Amino acid sequence: MKKIRVGVAGYGTIGQRLADGVAMQGDMELVGIADLAPTLSIQALRENDMIGANGVKYNLYLVDGADKAAFETKDIPVAGTFEELCKSVDVMLDSSPGGVGAKNKELYVKYGVKAIFQGGEKNSVADVFFHGYANYEKGLGVDYLKLTSCNTTGLIRTVDCLDREFGIERVAITIIRRVADPGDYHRGLTNALQIDKAPSHQAVDLMTIMPHVNATGILVHTPVTHGHIITVVASAKDGKKITKEAALAAFEKHPRIRVVTIDEGFKGNASLFKYARDLGNRRGDMYEIGLWADSIVETGNDIMYAINIPQESVTIPETMDAIRACMKMQLTREEGTAETNKYLHIGKFKKQ
Amino acid sequence: MKKIRVGVAGYGTIGQRLADGVAMQGDMELVGIADLAPTLSIQALRENDMIGANGVKYNLYLVDGADKAAFETKDIPVAGTFEELCKSVDVMLDSSPGGVGAKNKELYVKYGVKAIFQGGEKNSVADVFFHGYANYEKGLGVDYLKLTSCNTTGLIRTVDCLDREFGIERVAITIIRRVADPGDYHRGLTNALQIDKAPSHQAVDLMTIMPHVNATGILVHTPVTHGHIITVVASAKDGKKITKEAALAAFEKHPRIRVVTIDEGFKGNASLFKYARDLGNRRGDMYEIGLWADSIVETGNDIMYAINIPQESVTIPETMDAIRACMKMQLTREEGTAETNKYLHIGKFKKQ
Amino acid sequence: MKKIRVGVAGYGTIGQRLADGVAMQGDMELVGIADLAPTLSIQALRENDMIGANGVKYNLYLVDGADKAAFETKDIPVAGTFEELCKSVDVMLDSSPGGVGAKNKELYVKYGVKAIFQGGEKNSVADVFFHGYANYEKGLGVDYLKLTSCNTTGLIRTVDCLDREFGIERVAITIIRRVADPGDYHRGLTNALQIDKAPSHQAVDLMTIMPHVNATGILVHTPVTHGHIITVVASAKDGKKITKEAALAAFEKHPRIRVVTIDEGFKGNASLFKYARDLGNRRGDMYEIGLWADSIVETGNDIMYAINIPQESVTIPETMDAIRACMKMQLTREEGTAETNKYLHIGKFKKQ
Amino acid sequence: MKKIRVGVAGYGTIGQRLADGVAMQGDMELVGIADLAPTLSIQALRENDMIGANGVKYNLYLVDGADKAAFETKDIPVAGTFEELCKSVDVMLDSSPGGVGAKNKELYVKYGVKAIFQGGEKNSVADVFFHGYANYEKGLGVDYLKLTSCNTTGLIRTVDCLDREFGIERVAITIIRRVADPGDYHRGLTNALQIDKAPSHQAVDLMTIMPHVNATGILVHTPVTHGHIITVVASAKDGKKITKEAALAAFEKHPRIRVVTIDEGFKGNASLFKYARDLGNRRGDMYEIGLWADSIVETGNDIMYAINIPQESVTIPETMDAIRACMKMQLTREEGTAETNKYLHIGKFKKQ
Repeated sequence: MKKIRVGVAGYGTIGQRLADGVAMQGDMELVGIADLAPTLSIQALRENDMIGANGVKYNLYLVDGADKAAFETKDIPVAGTFEELCKSVDVMLDSSPGGVGAKNKELYVKYGVKAIFQGGEKNSVADVFFHGYANYEKGLGVDYLKLTSCNTTGLIRTVDCLDREFGIERVAITIIRRVADPGDYHRGLTNALQIDKAPSHQAVDLMTIMPHVNATGILVHTPVTHGHIITVVASAKDGKKITKEAALAAFEKHPRIRVVTIDEGFKGNASLFKYARDLGNRRGDMYEIGLWADSIVETGNDIMYAINIPQESVTIPETMDAIRACMKMQLTREEGTAETNKYLHIGKFKKQ
Repeated sequence: MKKIRVGVAGYGTIGQRLADGVAMQGDMELVGIADLAPTLSIQALRENDMIGANGVKYNLYLVDGADKAAFETKDIPVAGTFEELCKSVDVMLDSSPGGVGAKNKELYVKYGVKAIFQGGEKNSVADVFFHGYANYEKGLGVDYLKLTSCNTTGLIRTVDCLDREFGIERVAITIIRRVADPGDYHRGLTNALQIDKAPSHQAVDLMTIMPHVNATGILVHTPVTHGHIITVVASAKDGKKITKEAALAAFEKHPRIRVVTIDEGFKGNASLFKYARDLGNRRGDMYEIGLWADSIVETGNDIMYAINIPQESVTIPETMDAIRACMKMQLTREEGTAETNKYLHIGKFKKQ
Repeated sequence: MKKIRVGVAGYGTIGQRLADGVAMQGDMELVGIADLAPTLSIQALRENDMIGANGVKYNLYLVDGADKAAFETKDIPVAGTFEELCKSVDVMLDSSPGGVGAKNKELYVKYGVKAIFQGGEKNSVADVFFHGYANYEKGLGVDYLKLTSCNTTGLIRTVDCLDREFGIERVAITIIRRVADPGDYHRGLTNALQIDKAPSHQAVDLMTIMPHVNATGILVHTPVTHGHIITVVASAKDGKKITKEAALAAFEKHPRIRVVTIDEGFKGNASLFKYARDLGNRRGDMYEIGLWADSIVETGNDIMYAINIPQESVTIPETMDAIRACMKMQLTREEGTAETNKYLHIGKFKKQ
Repeated sequence: MKKIRVGVAGYGTIGQRLADGVAMQGDMELVGIADLAPTLSIQALRENDMIGANGVKYNLYLVDGADKAAFETKDIPVAGTFEELCKSVDVMLDSSPGGVGAKNKELYVKYGVKAIFQGGEKNSVADVFFHGYANYEKGLGVDYLKLTSCNTTGLIRTVDCLDREFGIERVAITIIRRVADPGDYHRGLTNALQIDKAPSHQAVDLMTIMPHVNATGILVHTPVTHGHIITVVASAKDGKKITKEAALAAFEKHPRIRVVTIDEGFKGNASLFKYARDLGNRRGDMYEIGLWADSIVETGNDIMYAINIPQESVTIPETMDAIRACMKMQLTREEGTAETNKYLHIGKFKKQ
């Protein structure tokens, strides 16, 4: 079977990991990546002779306005232009800075290339707002998809999981947001908790993907870098009771949810980052979200719990799902996510 | 009328502010403070010639085991022993380190002195677990009271406020806890969010004070120093609807709740700290909790909102209330809290 | 004697403290302050009925472009326009955002008003780059002065102190810079140390004020808010030895240097902030820099030590000195700084 | 040739990396690791079926007092006891918590096993205090070695480098120390810079390794996790001038010093951590220290510069050197460090 040809526009925090994700998929080919400047990430790729994940060579294409001389000075090989990359792929993963994707779309339309945008773009750029587990089938054959943002992606994994088991009608969330990624200097917060106007966009976005759920919430930024924590109060339809045991059993079965406990040593978001490094995962990343078993409490008939979102890598699996859906590689949610999980080694840690 | 004679055991973060609070009450006399070592706080008092808030002289008494020579070296005047202080007061405010208060109680019993303990002591040390607004009358004439901790004190202000207006039956809270006070080095957290096992003790404590409410919650420690933020989902009895407007109106009327907005410039916990400093408040403290009007959202029939807890000073007013209750200075919640508020200038900012 | 009439342009972190400083000087009159928007600082002033330090009323003037309606909505009284303020003062303290001061200068020239700019303006805005202790006489009668920045101001106190005692020829500094003030959200750093290109501007600025000293240094930004720490390696002329004891004795005599020790409890920058709050200082400020006696070490014939810079308030005394110099209120460094110190209660803690 | 058999006592932050380092050496065999409890690091190893770096199986031995049942519950295979491990190795790398190594030494003596201790142990535990580049020959054939701590190891790389080129007689350092590792909760600092009494132990330790150098310095703890930054003022013998160009040229040649610039994107310590992750390095580690070319400045005839110390991994190469020295695998500094560098892929990025 012919491999699906994929390109990645923007080799930043997300773009690097999208390229790695594609390089891991046995039924996809990473045609190349595109960027504007010889960033640290590209310098690191150059130091590795342009070899990325899984031993795959990452060909570099330059977008309009790139300073070719800067790449030459650093002896970074260039394979061609962004337009040439567009001509050579079936689908483009666009992880450009917010707003640039909408402009890039003109090229995608011109060359009949499908595209999957990340959370930074406006919803209007895409035909469907996508989540691999919650609405896979909506993405089938669609030309332009947009992924949910990191918080929303992880949050929906759990709400969709509960919804399929119990029927969820309402969630109220508190997002304790990490304010920067490791290595960021252009944004940051020092000794302050910053609050956003409610409701948070993540709650609103959840309702776009799961329109039968009423969602609201409050977001507070915190000065840390290793993963968001979200608390969720979820209510089942008709006031049905969700017990702690039933919720836990549902979460345990989900391949992209890693149930952990404080007693094991998972004391907070930094423990999950440390654990991923100790696993030897590339870039110290983790695709699963963490969910603390000892955070689950019943409140009336509702259930409350806390999850950890590894913001740098959490959207990668769902983006691979999106490729599968829009290219009709697999026609059902179960088949599509299973293929992604297999290639990314997701869920292998689950107790049998 | 004779002034009530008050002592303060432990001149740390809370003890200093308790002493200031007593010095501000027109109907109380600060007999003295007691401590063990010439800490920075006591050195600062010395630099001010032992003059504290409101121009009041703070006489220093030494607890057993104190190193008198250390005080002499620093030329810090000592008025007597802790036991002597006990003999001279009607009520002792005990803000000693956790566990020490229980030991001190033997002296209080011996000398027939009433005592009010802070949140660090076990509940068993006291006859009544007290909150000025929620259960003032329970403290009337009682010998040994224990105050709720900082988070619980601020939280209960809002839940009690809603309860009196709408009848509250259930709350689910998320505590985004500041992990240290400004100037702390013995505890701290660096680039991590740390989660506690649920339910948090604050939810459990709330139920002790307000037994008709079902409360639970999750607590996450964050590496900041200027005030906790708590999100609350509150449900009225019988599924009654609480609108945003009605909740806001209730909060606006409460003297110890300062309703703020992000648009005014209150972007987070550090804004409230900055504002208190800009007000010229002693020590940069604030007695009111902050409540963000633009955080209030409806979730089904329930109401969700976010508050800010100034951990160093929030329990001072309720401790003054406790003196009033246990000494029967005022016999009702309304009268007791009104006197405290008057002397601490609380609520004067309220729009007329 | 007629009081010198002073205005303050820009009521931000520095501006507020300049206004307070002027309000404390017995021989100056604070005519008013000017700003653009009803910031939190101005809202706090309003909550206090426009009464600032020392019981002085702070009249508010609006700069060009200010939204008068915004002030009216918040019921903040306005005394007039910035131009009107300019006409009414002898000297303006300009603590506007960087660059605005240069524009304001046109008005100062027009109305023949002297002006003192803060560190954010370019040196070219002023005739003399000023430090109260290091070059007071250069400011005598001058129309336009610029103050050194917070780090440079504190640093020069110590280098000038050593220079007068031992004759300094060279310093190498390491600035461990706090990256934001308490309450800042627009700048910040999260879990990172950020380095600037060397030499740091503070070293360069020092040489402008003390041209006989060769200075260089490295600056590293750190994610904290309570004061910079600087380490200094200072070399005397002709390789003369500076002993630890002699350096300490010199520092002990300086009114604006507070010699502290770790053993007393001054464990770091946050201890000095805490101490200022415990002193009950307005806004929790301190005018003196801290210098750790137990950081002083000899390296060859040179001396090394560490100081703490309270960035929000450290330049206030030297700005008062600048008023005294440019208005020829006192004609010598000794007299000028002594008057400032008297009114700001600086150095009263010094052991006799 | 027979491989040298190596064991690792303590599988914490350093121990894991020591095991990885040994697993990478073509002429060594990792016999096993020893620990007390099923920590997160061991759980991660278990999740990988006990396979560590380079595809090597890490056999786990339990130290006295370990709770075997806890390992069984988590289905973690155990190969034997620590005593059994001791009998099977030529040299033990002891990275136990401080103080435990001294106790372990009794077993090493009993079984005639050589041992290399990490910086946490007292110097008296070892015969020689060791650094691969500065005193390799002193370690030849020695039974008990102690490695310098992370800061000292990186610092000495640069001072030794300058010393061999210019002859260094004096250094004054400022250590801007990261206070915790990623994933630490038991130590931490929040919004504070904490200063230690001078001189710092790192300066004292440097003099033990390089007795002809006079060293002193000041250490300040900062609330970050990704690497220390040290500024160094180095003076050559007899006041000889060191130019910026000559210093840079010397640093560029050192395999374990990575010269970087701010312009390339290396803005601070977090950039180097990010870069190591982007390189795909196991655990996101880096063996080289960073040195900023644009931090180098001349001060009189002396040279000043700033380096970055990746505290988790920096001592691994020098520990491998120590094995080579004590086992007489290579007899000279040049040969020993070259073999270590080859197996750890150190210095391959150097421009040819």
